[in-house]
Amino acid sequence: MSMTTNFTINKSELKSLIGPGKIFFRDDPEFDETTFLSFGTDRTKVYQPDFDILAFPTTTEEVAKIIKYAYENEISIVPSGGRTGYAGGAIAKNKELVLSLSKMDKVLDFDPFFGSIKVQAGMITKNLHKEAEEKNFYFPVDFASTGSSQIGGNIATNAGGVRVVHYGLIRQWVLGLTVVTGTGEILEFNGEVLKNNTGYDLKQLFIGSEGTLGVITEATLKLTTKPLDSRVLLVAVSDFASILSLFQETHLVKVPLLAFEFFTEYCLGKVKSHLGIPDPFQSPSPYYVLMEFEIADESDDEKLFGFLETITEKGLIVDGSLAQNSRQSETFWKYREGISESISIEYTVHKNDISLPLRNMEPFLVDMKSLLNGKYPGFEIALFGHVGDGNLHLNIVKPKDLSNEDFFKKCKEVDPDMFRLLQKYHGSISAEHGIGLLKKDFLHFSRTQAEIILMKEIKKSMDPKNIMNPGKVF
Amino acid sequence: MSMTTNFTINKSELKSLIGPGKIFFRDDPEFDETTFLSFGTDRTKVYQPDFDILAFPTTTEEVAKIIKYAYENEISIVPSGGRTGYAGGAIAKNKELVLSLSKMDKVLDFDPFFGSIKVQAGMITKNLHKEAEEKNFYFPVDFASTGSSQIGGNIATNAGGVRVVHYGLIRQWVLGLTVVTGTGEILEFNGEVLKNNTGYDLKQLFIGSEGTLGVITEATLKLTTKPLDSRVLLVAVSDFASILSLFQETHLVKVPLLAFEFFTEYCLGKVKSHLGIPDPFQSPSPYYVLMEFEIADESDDEKLFGFLETITEKGLIVDGSLAQNSRQSETFWKYREGISESISIEYTVHKNDISLPLRNMEPFLVDMKSLLNGKYPGFEIALFGHVGDGNLHLNIVKPKDLSNEDFFKKCKEVDPDMFRLLQKYHGSISAEHGIGLLKKDFLHFSRTQAEIILMKEIKKSMDPKNIMNPGKVF
Repeated sequence: MSMTTNFTINKSELKSLIGPGKIFFRDDPEFDETTFLSFGTDRTKVYQPDFDILAFPTTTEEVAKIIKYAYENEISIVPSGGRTGYAGGAIAKNKELVLSLSKMDKVLDFDPFFGSIKVQAGMITKNLHKEAEEKNFYFPVDFASTGSSQIGGNIATNAGGVRVVHYGLIRQWVLGLTVVTGTGEILEFNGEVLKNNTGYDLKQLFIGSEGTLGVITEATLKLTTKPLDSRVLLVAVSDFASILSLFQETHLVKVPLLAFEFFTEYCLGKVKSHLGIPDPFQSPSPYYVLMEFEIADESDDEKLFGFLETITEKGLIVDGSLAQNSRQSETFWKYREGISESISIEYTVHKNDISLPLRNMEPFLVDMKSLLNGKYPGFEIALFGHVGDGNLHLNIVKPKDLSNEDFFKKCKEVDPDMFRLLQKYHGSISAEHGIGLLKKDFLHFSRTQAEIILMKEIKKSMDPKNIMNPGKVF
Repeated sequence: MSMTTNFTINKSELKSLIGPGKIFFRDDPEFDETTFLSFGTDRTKVYQPDFDILAFPTTTEEVAKIIKYAYENEISIVPSGGRTGYAGGAIAKNKELVLSLSKMDKVLDFDPFFGSIKVQAGMITKNLHKEAEEKNFYFPVDFASTGSSQIGGNIATNAGGVRVVHYGLIRQWVLGLTVVTGTGEILEFNGEVLKNNTGYDLKQLFIGSEGTLGVITEATLKLTTKPLDSRVLLVAVSDFASILSLFQETHLVKVPLLAFEFFTEYCLGKVKSHLGIPDPFQSPSPYYVLMEFEIADESDDEKLFGFLETITEKGLIVDGSLAQNSRQSETFWKYREGISESISIEYTVHKNDISLPLRNMEPFLVDMKSLLNGKYPGFEIALFGHVGDGNLHLNIVKPKDLSNEDFFKKCKEVDPDMFRLLQKYHGSISAEHGIGLLKKDFLHFSRTQAEIILMKEIKKSMDPKNIMNPGKVF
């Protein structure tokens, strides 16, 4: 089972494992305590990191050496990427060895014909975007933390972002992976071909595995081409059902839909007051939807005007505005992207990142509101998200008169009630954030016992001593 | 290990398992021998079916009852779909029980907002296309045998087709699966949500598993919208390198590319003489490329004219023609789609469905030709395929003066040599067709020993008695 650092470890033996300047101990002068510990934590801020060994390998072979040593000496390992997660997946709190991918950030290969790139897993996502653009291509997985997140972590958590409705999750862009399993074995899955129907597609297991099967060290990614231009449409909607009908209508516009986001009047209010920006429309509405379309020329613009006319005539919107220029597009996006920040500045919130079949969203929200009204009066919900993907951010806002301690205690009671509702409506307790430590106890609401047993058997086949991120996910 | 029918089986016990008229024995009068045996064979025509029990369950629960019985009585099972495969994956030649999904062809559910449909796995692919169209949507996985193939078989073999370059393989369109494992346990993977980051995505293992982990009984599929119209462009090319540059250029046209197919002068000659259609261009060229683009309006057409101009100016093509109407489009497609039929009518061929990184295709083909010239003089290659996906159909044509027996014996010698070349150039020995029985002995050219061991362990976790399609894939 889960193991902690074996104190018989020979420090100099470990340090010499992959050459000088690559393995550090907590008492080394190279790092102050805060910086050192930051490599074993993430954005949850709930768990206290506690570990003594920090490794910075530079190649897959060095990763294999470290894991082989860890396997032989029964040392647990926490892979450390950009540490931008919200589920505690990258927390090292049990004296694990923290294996940072930060020094593995090189481009390894590029195919200009097919449009694919092979990189080391520690490459910052933003840098991959740059590399792709320099090569006249585009890597479409994009979200707020790409300036810090790493591509390996993105894959290990099957990252999504704001344009999933068009480009899908990162799973769709992974051609091949090089990984090191929990025995220190290097496996290369699939190389760089698009088609390879030769048995089980094992790389799929690593996508979203949160470091529990091994370490992703290299990835070959499919690239696409950059959208020429885009147009943002912001609309005000009077009821939730209209949001779904609106999404249905977008299937019929022959202009590619890049994003379909929504937020409530409550969220808009917080953004307005925090950022000091005006109301988008004359009268308030309970819901707002932001749509972004890829446009190539004027004829696409005409189609969007036609679309705006259609949804107005059908009574699906009460007001709507097509951004006239990129500055207005940015403003429209601010209403949506400013929400998290605006709320968390002024309030304490309990975050939930859930998903549901679109048609079940409304009954779920009705049940959820009556749950809160009944059991937790005074709790308000900040509701927004990638509604086109079935993905809701349901953040519970702490009432002013409740202490933080009491609030989080009550949230711990709300969670299982909400997860039961999600189960009833065939939803998922984690759309994008993953399970990590934070939702481990609730995994059974989204996965059956039989599935959890299968996952454990699969883990055992690649990590027989359970040294890879032990205690995470299940 | 692999088991055959246990002769102590109580026929009436088995017949009564899922109600009358659903389980048949070889000597029952309901089926003549040929029809009966056709349920345990596919299009390879290499293997002789030999089995005595044929089941037609109508629900997942009935499939579970059969497999539970088979598990307890150690009877092997071959899942039987549309039997359009080319790898021997659906062959029952060792007295297995053949489990046909043909009576499981219902639509179970539909979400008009998100655009997803849940069907039983025995639904004929063409019927799914119809169902989707009636609902104003489109299911984009399309290929020659969709009139017979079933959606469950498509998923079990990760089917592709002619528009993979735009829509990807079927893997990309599967939201959820219901399966029955080798113990008779029913598992529901993922339901219908797009985002569900809660541990390993187990359904991915079943996609492309060729029936070796269990039976896929139900599938929830993502739908899209139908392309409004399309335009076919046929060009003549003087060298292979230009094909790749041409593909690279298509990344820059802002009109969606639906297909990028190629064929050689040799293939064109066979199609012309078999179908009696004229040359597409005045002078012959060594290679031809067929491109299909989705067009929404005149401005897209203008872009395509611009594209044709660009590739002409850059010297990438020697001649080119944009289809002026749908009839001409059909003719252009005939040059490509008539190849298999035209060649197999007049010649005996040894088929290969391989894939390669695009940039490695040319050196591979050079090596392959020198291999054939050296060791097998007189062997000609009919080369065509989905070159945009890295997928080549490399069919070796039997010289007239060689007997069938000698030809196939020689082909058995060629295969490993070719697979070694594929390995050298990081290709796959099976792009779309799968492994089945036909390529089982060569799996190691595309997958490492460590991967094969992992696959076996995964199989054991879901099919501990190895009763699910034993002897296939590995």
